[in-house]
Amino acid sequence: MTSLSSVTPYDNMSPVTRAAYRAKAAAADLAPLPRSAKDDALLAIADALEVRTAEIVEANAVDIERAREAGTSDAIIDRLTLTPERVRAIAADVRQVAALPDPVGEVVRGSTLPNGIDLRQVRVPLGVVGIIYEARPNVTVDGAALCLKSGNAVLLRGSSSAYSSNTALVKVIRDAVGGSGLPADAVQLVPGESRDSVQELMRARGMVDVLIPRGGASLIRTVVEGSTVPVIETGTGNCHVYVDAETDIDMAVAILLNSKAQRPSVCNAAETLLVHQDVADAFLPRALDALAEAGVTVHGDERVLGYTDGTKATIVPATAEDWETEYLSYDIAAAVVDSLDAAVAHIRLWSSGHTEAIVTTSQAAARRFTRLVDSTTVAVNASTRFTDGGEFGFGAEIGISTQKLHARGPMGLPELTSTKYIVTGDGHTR
Amino acid sequence: MTSLSSVTPYDNMSPVTRAAYRAKAAAADLAPLPRSAKDDALLAIADALEVRTAEIVEANAVDIERAREAGTSDAIIDRLTLTPERVRAIAADVRQVAALPDPVGEVVRGSTLPNGIDLRQVRVPLGVVGIIYEARPNVTVDGAALCLKSGNAVLLRGSSSAYSSNTALVKVIRDAVGGSGLPADAVQLVPGESRDSVQELMRARGMVDVLIPRGGASLIRTVVEGSTVPVIETGTGNCHVYVDAETDIDMAVAILLNSKAQRPSVCNAAETLLVHQDVADAFLPRALDALAEAGVTVHGDERVLGYTDGTKATIVPATAEDWETEYLSYDIAAAVVDSLDAAVAHIRLWSSGHTEAIVTTSQAAARRFTRLVDSTTVAVNASTRFTDGGEFGFGAEIGISTQKLHARGPMGLPELTSTKYIVTGDGHTR
Repeated sequence: MTSLSSVTPYDNMSPVTRAAYRAKAAAADLAPLPRSAKDDALLAIADALEVRTAEIVEANAVDIERAREAGTSDAIIDRLTLTPERVRAIAADVRQVAALPDPVGEVVRGSTLPNGIDLRQVRVPLGVVGIIYEARPNVTVDGAALCLKSGNAVLLRGSSSAYSSNTALVKVIRDAVGGSGLPADAVQLVPGESRDSVQELMRARGMVDVLIPRGGASLIRTVVEGSTVPVIETGTGNCHVYVDAETDIDMAVAILLNSKAQRPSVCNAAETLLVHQDVADAFLPRALDALAEAGVTVHGDERVLGYTDGTKATIVPATAEDWETEYLSYDIAAAVVDSLDAAVAHIRLWSSGHTEAIVTTSQAAARRFTRLVDSTTVAVNASTRFTDGGEFGFGAEIGISTQKLHARGPMGLPELTSTKYIVTGDGHTR
Repeated sequence: MTSLSSVTPYDNMSPVTRAAYRAKAAAADLAPLPRSAKDDALLAIADALEVRTAEIVEANAVDIERAREAGTSDAIIDRLTLTPERVRAIAADVRQVAALPDPVGEVVRGSTLPNGIDLRQVRVPLGVVGIIYEARPNVTVDGAALCLKSGNAVLLRGSSSAYSSNTALVKVIRDAVGGSGLPADAVQLVPGESRDSVQELMRARGMVDVLIPRGGASLIRTVVEGSTVPVIETGTGNCHVYVDAETDIDMAVAILLNSKAQRPSVCNAAETLLVHQDVADAFLPRALDALAEAGVTVHGDERVLGYTDGTKATIVPATAEDWETEYLSYDIAAAVVDSLDAAVAHIRLWSSGHTEAIVTTSQAAARRFTRLVDSTTVAVNASTRFTDGGEFGFGAEIGISTQKLHARGPMGLPELTSTKYIVTGDGHTR
């Protein structure tokens, strides 16, 4: 395949800029490809990951060794670790992406205008996607697979602590992509382990079409504040469960517990409980005991502290900081509120806008809460944990956007596309 | 109407931050309003503009006087000028916005998940929209009307040269909005005439949801590079007309002329002509004469310069700069290319990605061009001038996005919205 970019003035470029230019040329070649060509490459990647597992695990061992020497925590080393089983699971994920429908070419809108012009708005790839992420080598493969499937070239900038693993993975992926007849430059690791390369990526406006930071709050803040490239902000989740005056207590306890404790380390776990004052006496003693059994520490306001006697729960006084904290741990902030509107006001003030749930038997309350709460997802009588691309049936997820522009909530393949208009006339002029 | 934002720590804020906070509170109140409430406010604005025309024209005279003293060009003074007729036309535009469907509440996607949860993705307002623009007071009213209709609060930052006009217009609008029972703070002029207020607006991430710069290239660049608030880039149009090997010469001349000369000062006017070498002898002499008659100067490559003899046209040699210039004047760059793919490569390298047209009788050429060219709009046998919200039937336009994220091409009311997911279960947990 010949590239359509005739001018490639690579000579005086920095390595990062050169990578971006190559990605842009590859993106131009990927964009018009039919689904079958992209799926073939994805299946070749999956096969290659399995065939070359030993090479990948060996490269990963270098990162793990280095992390151990640096005194890295077991939790982070676990995230970093690739075993043959994990590599197989990653390959299976790639096959699942291949099985998903291709978003490119979908006609989003279409009509014949009064003057006879045919207007169609069609999905096209974004172009070059930059992903900046932490020490999770699976994101390297996931990110590459989702971008390829949606016709995008990808620039991967993982943590330097996973550099050896990522280098091996990207080598395997590029070999497979090239072997399928697609441009290998569609998948590139951003060269360099220093922070300068991240800075350069963030300023590569015109070459990189979007940056998706995946990781902790400080990584995301850095990318959002320093980029001239458009950014999709992902993942901070200070999620709320509001138990309404009219409620099924059993359901409310179950939803609270599931939202908080089923997997506290993820962004869709609940971090704050708000209880309507009319139901506090009936609900809180049971909820506090259930949270105690699950090992959750409650950071309560004055009214919640009033329920300390007679519960097994540990309740510590909440400060303003608790209302805005994403604990990601067995902790929850809790307050009693005067009304549904007071709960909404609390959420408006403190929420990160990820997911808020109401538990209520009242249709009016459900309707008012879903209208007034402005978060990516509002759940009625369901756990906050459902905000997830897999649960929503998207088949795959590149992250959960907590911003309002472009994409909001779980992002699947269509969120990795833009659109273009095609205007067809037969000599039309104005 | 009581605001749901219970905490308003206005005391230590700068005037711009305070305006943004008030806008955020107003946006919360606007979001759940039904269409009728918003339309009533819009109709009240239209009426008030007509009733208070004298006041507006008087305030406008102050700006015009100041502009004259500063030696401002007639063209800019014309843009700045509000006459009673122009105010009536602006009021009519507001009534037209009221007549458009409300995008808020539209269900974009919906399904019942395998576990029985009902999932709906629903359009919601963006929240607070900031518009930074030049000396066109009509944008003040247009922007306010489109934002209100889509449930958004708006912060307007016009040129300081239109400050008196904008102050009067916003006063009229706010009075009408408040009089209709909606929060007047939904429409605010950003306080202060200095550039500091623009800078502050650009850094108001978390309070302002999106910034839309409307104006010249340097304004847009400043906003794009300096903002932490997400930006929608608008308007730069280095548009191309490509005349294919197989073509209807009459049609090609008509489309070229319309694209270039019907209104050269707008972003969807053509700036470069590319001609397939096989049709150059038949097409160029006629095209050059037609351009000459329309008063267009041609900036030609060597092969176009070869047609100088025997044409009335002024042809000057093109430099690399010409390929990337948005003239917005009676000038056009022109080149002969070897093939359709060479035309595509030229467009890829130099285009701003706004609109490119192909004139061809070949179905294969039309198909290849529309697939390979990645611009907001690709026109087949139609003028570039059709890329326009009004022409596309959107009823109104807040600008033409030339970026790929969120919105691309002409932006109507739906492009001023985001979405949220509503998850409804009956006690669902994971």
